[in-house]
Amino acid sequence: MSDVKKPWGGRFREKNHPLFEKMNRSLPFDIRMYKEDIKLNSAYSKELNRIGVINDVELKEILEGLKIVEKEIERGGLSVFDSEVEDIHMGVETLLAQKIGDSARKMHTGKSRNDQVATDMRMYLLKEIEVILELIKAFQKEIVLLAESRVGDPMPGFTHLRQAQPVLFSHYMMSFFFSIQRDYERLSDLKKRVSIMPLGSAALAGSAFPLNRENLMKELGFDKICENSMDGASSRDFVLEFLSDISILSITLSKFAEDFIIFSSEAYNFFELSDKVTTGSSIMPNKKNPDSLELTRGKTGRLIGNMVALFTLLKSLPSTYNKDLQEDKDPLFDTIDTIKEVLEVNSILLQTIEVKTENMLNSIDSLSFATELADYLAKNNLPFREAHRIVGAIVGDCLDKGIFLKDLKESDLEAYCSLFRGIGDKWSDISSIISKRNLFGGTGVESVKKQIEYAKKIVVN
Amino acid sequence: MSDVKKPWGGRFREKNHPLFEKMNRSLPFDIRMYKEDIKLNSAYSKELNRIGVINDVELKEILEGLKIVEKEIERGGLSVFDSEVEDIHMGVETLLAQKIGDSARKMHTGKSRNDQVATDMRMYLLKEIEVILELIKAFQKEIVLLAESRVGDPMPGFTHLRQAQPVLFSHYMMSFFFSIQRDYERLSDLKKRVSIMPLGSAALAGSAFPLNRENLMKELGFDKICENSMDGASSRDFVLEFLSDISILSITLSKFAEDFIIFSSEAYNFFELSDKVTTGSSIMPNKKNPDSLELTRGKTGRLIGNMVALFTLLKSLPSTYNKDLQEDKDPLFDTIDTIKEVLEVNSILLQTIEVKTENMLNSIDSLSFATELADYLAKNNLPFREAHRIVGAIVGDCLDKGIFLKDLKESDLEAYCSLFRGIGDKWSDISSIISKRNLFGGTGVESVKKQIEYAKKIVVN
Amino acid sequence: MSDVKKPWGGRFREKNHPLFEKMNRSLPFDIRMYKEDIKLNSAYSKELNRIGVINDVELKEILEGLKIVEKEIERGGLSVFDSEVEDIHMGVETLLAQKIGDSARKMHTGKSRNDQVATDMRMYLLKEIEVILELIKAFQKEIVLLAESRVGDPMPGFTHLRQAQPVLFSHYMMSFFFSIQRDYERLSDLKKRVSIMPLGSAALAGSAFPLNRENLMKELGFDKICENSMDGASSRDFVLEFLSDISILSITLSKFAEDFIIFSSEAYNFFELSDKVTTGSSIMPNKKNPDSLELTRGKTGRLIGNMVALFTLLKSLPSTYNKDLQEDKDPLFDTIDTIKEVLEVNSILLQTIEVKTENMLNSIDSLSFATELADYLAKNNLPFREAHRIVGAIVGDCLDKGIFLKDLKESDLEAYCSLFRGIGDKWSDISSIISKRNLFGGTGVESVKKQIEYAKKIVVN
Amino acid sequence: MSDVKKPWGGRFREKNHPLFEKMNRSLPFDIRMYKEDIKLNSAYSKELNRIGVINDVELKEILEGLKIVEKEIERGGLSVFDSEVEDIHMGVETLLAQKIGDSARKMHTGKSRNDQVATDMRMYLLKEIEVILELIKAFQKEIVLLAESRVGDPMPGFTHLRQAQPVLFSHYMMSFFFSIQRDYERLSDLKKRVSIMPLGSAALAGSAFPLNRENLMKELGFDKICENSMDGASSRDFVLEFLSDISILSITLSKFAEDFIIFSSEAYNFFELSDKVTTGSSIMPNKKNPDSLELTRGKTGRLIGNMVALFTLLKSLPSTYNKDLQEDKDPLFDTIDTIKEVLEVNSILLQTIEVKTENMLNSIDSLSFATELADYLAKNNLPFREAHRIVGAIVGDCLDKGIFLKDLKESDLEAYCSLFRGIGDKWSDISSIISKRNLFGGTGVESVKKQIEYAKKIVVN
Repeated sequence: MSDVKKPWGGRFREKNHPLFEKMNRSLPFDIRMYKEDIKLNSAYSKELNRIGVINDVELKEILEGLKIVEKEIERGGLSVFDSEVEDIHMGVETLLAQKIGDSARKMHTGKSRNDQVATDMRMYLLKEIEVILELIKAFQKEIVLLAESRVGDPMPGFTHLRQAQPVLFSHYMMSFFFSIQRDYERLSDLKKRVSIMPLGSAALAGSAFPLNRENLMKELGFDKICENSMDGASSRDFVLEFLSDISILSITLSKFAEDFIIFSSEAYNFFELSDKVTTGSSIMPNKKNPDSLELTRGKTGRLIGNMVALFTLLKSLPSTYNKDLQEDKDPLFDTIDTIKEVLEVNSILLQTIEVKTENMLNSIDSLSFATELADYLAKNNLPFREAHRIVGAIVGDCLDKGIFLKDLKESDLEAYCSLFRGIGDKWSDISSIISKRNLFGGTGVESVKKQIEYAKKIVVN
Repeated sequence: MSDVKKPWGGRFREKNHPLFEKMNRSLPFDIRMYKEDIKLNSAYSKELNRIGVINDVELKEILEGLKIVEKEIERGGLSVFDSEVEDIHMGVETLLAQKIGDSARKMHTGKSRNDQVATDMRMYLLKEIEVILELIKAFQKEIVLLAESRVGDPMPGFTHLRQAQPVLFSHYMMSFFFSIQRDYERLSDLKKRVSIMPLGSAALAGSAFPLNRENLMKELGFDKICENSMDGASSRDFVLEFLSDISILSITLSKFAEDFIIFSSEAYNFFELSDKVTTGSSIMPNKKNPDSLELTRGKTGRLIGNMVALFTLLKSLPSTYNKDLQEDKDPLFDTIDTIKEVLEVNSILLQTIEVKTENMLNSIDSLSFATELADYLAKNNLPFREAHRIVGAIVGDCLDKGIFLKDLKESDLEAYCSLFRGIGDKWSDISSIISKRNLFGGTGVESVKKQIEYAKKIVVN
Repeated sequence: MSDVKKPWGGRFREKNHPLFEKMNRSLPFDIRMYKEDIKLNSAYSKELNRIGVINDVELKEILEGLKIVEKEIERGGLSVFDSEVEDIHMGVETLLAQKIGDSARKMHTGKSRNDQVATDMRMYLLKEIEVILELIKAFQKEIVLLAESRVGDPMPGFTHLRQAQPVLFSHYMMSFFFSIQRDYERLSDLKKRVSIMPLGSAALAGSAFPLNRENLMKELGFDKICENSMDGASSRDFVLEFLSDISILSITLSKFAEDFIIFSSEAYNFFELSDKVTTGSSIMPNKKNPDSLELTRGKTGRLIGNMVALFTLLKSLPSTYNKDLQEDKDPLFDTIDTIKEVLEVNSILLQTIEVKTENMLNSIDSLSFATELADYLAKNNLPFREAHRIVGAIVGDCLDKGIFLKDLKESDLEAYCSLFRGIGDKWSDISSIISKRNLFGGTGVESVKKQIEYAKKIVVN
Repeated sequence: MSDVKKPWGGRFREKNHPLFEKMNRSLPFDIRMYKEDIKLNSAYSKELNRIGVINDVELKEILEGLKIVEKEIERGGLSVFDSEVEDIHMGVETLLAQKIGDSARKMHTGKSRNDQVATDMRMYLLKEIEVILELIKAFQKEIVLLAESRVGDPMPGFTHLRQAQPVLFSHYMMSFFFSIQRDYERLSDLKKRVSIMPLGSAALAGSAFPLNRENLMKELGFDKICENSMDGASSRDFVLEFLSDISILSITLSKFAEDFIIFSSEAYNFFELSDKVTTGSSIMPNKKNPDSLELTRGKTGRLIGNMVALFTLLKSLPSTYNKDLQEDKDPLFDTIDTIKEVLEVNSILLQTIEVKTENMLNSIDSLSFATELADYLAKNNLPFREAHRIVGAIVGDCLDKGIFLKDLKESDLEAYCSLFRGIGDKWSDISSIISKRNLFGGTGVESVKKQIEYAKKIVVN
């Protein structure tokens, strides 16, 4: 008995083994692209009509039938399909044939599932990229608003997770803004490489029917037509690039999550996360855990794993379509879902966070003012390396004697180096330290205000 | 309004945001472990009874209630749970409480979800490893049977995908057997590192109740108890090792799949795959595609991706439980499902494959006998490097003149080197070439028979 | 004893342990960027002079001294440095100080190694990207020239490594061209994200000296200044993007290598690789192995490994500079070296390859003409699915009876379906089959000529 | 002109292109295995002598010659080789031939570089695994000694980087011990899969010479002989397993590093790292950075990257030797070097660290005693969930009113629940809280002492 219901059953004498059939079936995941598949079939049928493969009556039946099929799937999902249907392409055609009969079976003339699935995927991804770009912007907006709300408030700035120099909290927040802005631009650049239409490539050699691919391109909203059918029907570099771009974004988000987990711990206490995005413990009544940030951080693994999955799959794969490519969808779809969820939840987190700038201020260790002293000497013409050495010795003495660096007076400093004369006893005022860094991109208040102003133009309408 | 239904709601004043709640919810995937969770709760309740936390009546209620809960979940799956239930642990407790009331709420005394989920996962994985080991053995058995069915048939042996020297087909098949045997042993070695019970670790510090962990260990079928509660409640190295082991196995299978895809292509035609595990094309009626092998090869990506996902997740994660760990389940479960499917389908593939040994024989290029000539000279005391050079020149002449190497007579060979005297005109007989390789592990018939005999003891009862 | 020679030794009382010192030392690999470091110091010194930190005499000494230092390193490499020098930044300064004394020690005023190394890396990478882009173009040029040299020659087209439909060899080659063209564009898009100058960010807070970063940007050839010092001094997304882009390119190259390894094997014999890029065997005098292609394919592992290394490193890394970042250089540099070597060697491979189009033609299996028959019926108004079924049956009969599909006459075909009437006995002529695929992007001769013409404009001057 | 110096040059007419020759050359990295290659050649020559391929005089020359060659390479490294020598195998043979002439050229009889390199690698790796195991033990020893030195000192225990429950510092340290112990066992299990001798497999088919592989096995120190020559000459699963095992170990070390970076930051101040393993900043005289820990954490990326590199390389690689395998050495060697360095430096770090247990004690937040109260109620027969709810409310009130939980008296508690009667005012004494956790594996002093005792038997002689 042959698989007569299969679209390819002709030369086959035996049915597929059920276990293989299950492995081979993509409908459970490619059903996601039913809207795209239907849109494609509509546009394609118009073109088949133009070149005379189907007549006006058939076209009308198809177009109306497809609308009904779309609604049916919208409502019933997987349940509307026979368990034998392999994929969404056959699913749509089969449902249509149930409604309008034989003319549905003409719809596949001159195309292959190879170019069809490649076209569906690109349409689907283009749509989702727009959604993700909006969610990125929304998250950036929360960053800017938070930064703007406390422009002048200082916090300790860290390198190596050690206090380095004081910075403005708003400057710190804006560092995420600009990092994410590049993630945004990267994803935007990708769009032109997704917006290339494979349809017309057929299995690999190009369709033998005189399709006008310009028409199809316009109808389906692509910017470009793939220039070579063998390339078009099977290249997946656009998925690799998407998965890489999102992985890079997830690295930015893991940095954000790591910082905020540490800075909201009891020892730092810079932030209080809202009850809306935290949970407790089933055993310890005292706990309030930053689960949303931890999941954000943890999902970096999933996103990078998805990327590696596709790179591995494609490594050494010969030219044109190979069935291995069926495995491209799970990582793509999972990455789309994950990044959307992560962005949304972190926007809520920022909307509801309490920033404890007083704690930030109080935690500043005045040893982090040491660079001020070295800079002062350098400005007074001491070679910086020598200045650094002298201040290093001062720091050492403070540590040994248990003195706060900020409490050293001009006279104390002069004992180390006469060039300190004139520095004044107020040298360690935080505002004045920060105000020295108003060069472009620095942590000075004016500089940060400019950053915020610039950012608002981008994300706040 | 606080989340009163949450097991941790006590100190919380606001409800979780629905988007975060969805992100945080693990029930949709950890429901898989309901049998393990129930088994754990049964054993644990007996221990609570022993130490006096629950009385005999309560114990009886719990044990009977849990059996009912198990059947309910078996039948209804996710649908039996409230949408607010976070995870399988709370799910089981809540269902139980609906049946037996307050005593269900005592079941969580002295344990934490941290040690509970770690224990469930280990029990679940131990069970699945056994299943996978059986499937590996079943696949190996098909290899051995195929090898045994054609012990003496030669095929071209390749290196660099170029003909190298003739080998026996059965020798070639057995190379997979021994490779997979190491994959089997690796997975077996892992079991002792999974079979370590965390229960009793509580959240991190160890339970404050005088549990006898030996009792629990025996009841739950573990070999060992974790020696340190902070390590036990949160280490996931056993999952990393499992994902690595399966990834290594998938590399072996990708080698098998790659070979069989190439060797069943028209140009080689060594194998005919059955209709049971192949499909056709929706556009090209001629096609018969090796989808099962391609999916096997492609799923290597998924398996390695899952492994990388967890490595990435765990990188830089601080000590003890962090919510990131919730993300360990998807890769684990997906890898389990995938490898089982792949092994099953490839066993069917081997059961139904047609081996075309005649084509193998006919395709042997006699240039691959060149090593025989070099070996002959070396046996006659010419330094091998010199022998190699001479035979290289003979090969070059064959190529230039379009002569088959095997057709060279003793006299032709003597023209290149007098040491060929005595080699005889039948030097190029394949059987005799192969029969020279009967050393342990070689491709000679006797050697291969020993390999098969040894293998059968392992996999065929 | 303190590390007095260290640039940071001031507050330290004990020397570093030699094993740690070795682990910590980056000079052996960051020496690569000595030209960039010197260029940076020259530009920066001019700016220090402009703002009065160093006077004209000092500036002159520095600029001339740096030139001498550059030549010294060019000649002597690592050997010119003391074993105690940590990195290239201290290396340059130390060598300079040996020549000009104290004024060298002023050069580090107002900058940090954090912004300095980030700036060096970006300058270095920008330079190397240009080199790589040229090598990509050179490889593409070889593809186009090969395609152009045999525009009309057919070969079997494969999907699933099974014969699918005949295509032109030149069409096949051009599929690589267009795939690589996207790799080229991707790398070009990256440049704008590399060409952002961090200098002036200092350690994290921005320099306390009134540097004009516009001046520095112009002098160093950047397009933009980083808008936020905390972001600028430590973000490495540009390296991630580079490593991803090259990994995607390596996937394209692995496809090329895989194809050419298979197609140059004895069973296909479509290509003869030149002796220039192949090797033999030390034991088998007959072997000629495609090592260059195999190494190309194998190095995909290295390139993807480098990418994963940096993703893993950056995952969960807190904000600003952490010493982990020192580990960004090895993968970056190795990827640069590897991809350049791979591109160069594959250009040589294509320059010297022999294309055996006669073998290609002869190997075409006429079952791959089956789609023609189905299309013919579809053009005659049979629903495609029905047409596919009929031709599937014809294919089945050919296989059963051992007949070549191409030998079926019109009358034979009519026995299956009356609509075949009029197809003519010459329906299976390859040229006419191919000529039906002249739609944009198809494998028809005219279509391929257009592809080549378009491509030549891009790569051939 | 043919490459007459190549061991495979016979049939070749043209020289390799210099760029390809460079790409193809492995000597710069496989020179590492010269000792193994020489040992192998010595043993193999004895076997060749036994079977009559070389006579006693030749054997003597070879054995003595090889000793001289070994010393030469030991002294001169790469510099002793001609730039044309491809690999260490040809390198050794060529140097030997320069000394003893033609008999050196007999040494390669009946073996191939395929089985030779596989054997060398396994010998080399076995040696290095022993070194690594010793370094792991040394690191574990430092952990145990540190734990033992302060058995009774408490510290806050964290989950989610939030204070959870107090634990002993020594318990915390021992959690690393047991985690690493599994890493140790994993690596030990691997040894049996490395200790399998491929020699005798020749290129793929097995040697045509009557070698006694038992003799070779014993001479070279292997435990087993590979049972199938095609498997033996090319399988690299033992390298994958090694790279996975070390990656898993690196995850453990990244956890350790992450913890210690955070806990030695100013806000926690639990540890003071020694000057021996920290560095300062070139701009900020105040900085003391935990570079050794950061590099430990960062090198996780390198180690996982190496693992992924080899997985990617092996994915879809056909059976037997392919040149891609040359790329297995860089990741293997780099991983060996890296893990040894990391283990050594972290042992020094622990030897020289200052543990500030007073700061640990002072930082304990008494909210982390909340579980005690819930347990108390549960012991008094309140369902745990109810107990948790009540204590959650107490915690909430403490936070609202700014009261320390530990300061609540029995009477205060009774106001929430009458079952608190009898708890006493000293319920919040840390020692008594910890002493309740003396079950096996818990944080009680007795339990931890047993852990230490057990551990000392393993690592301290």
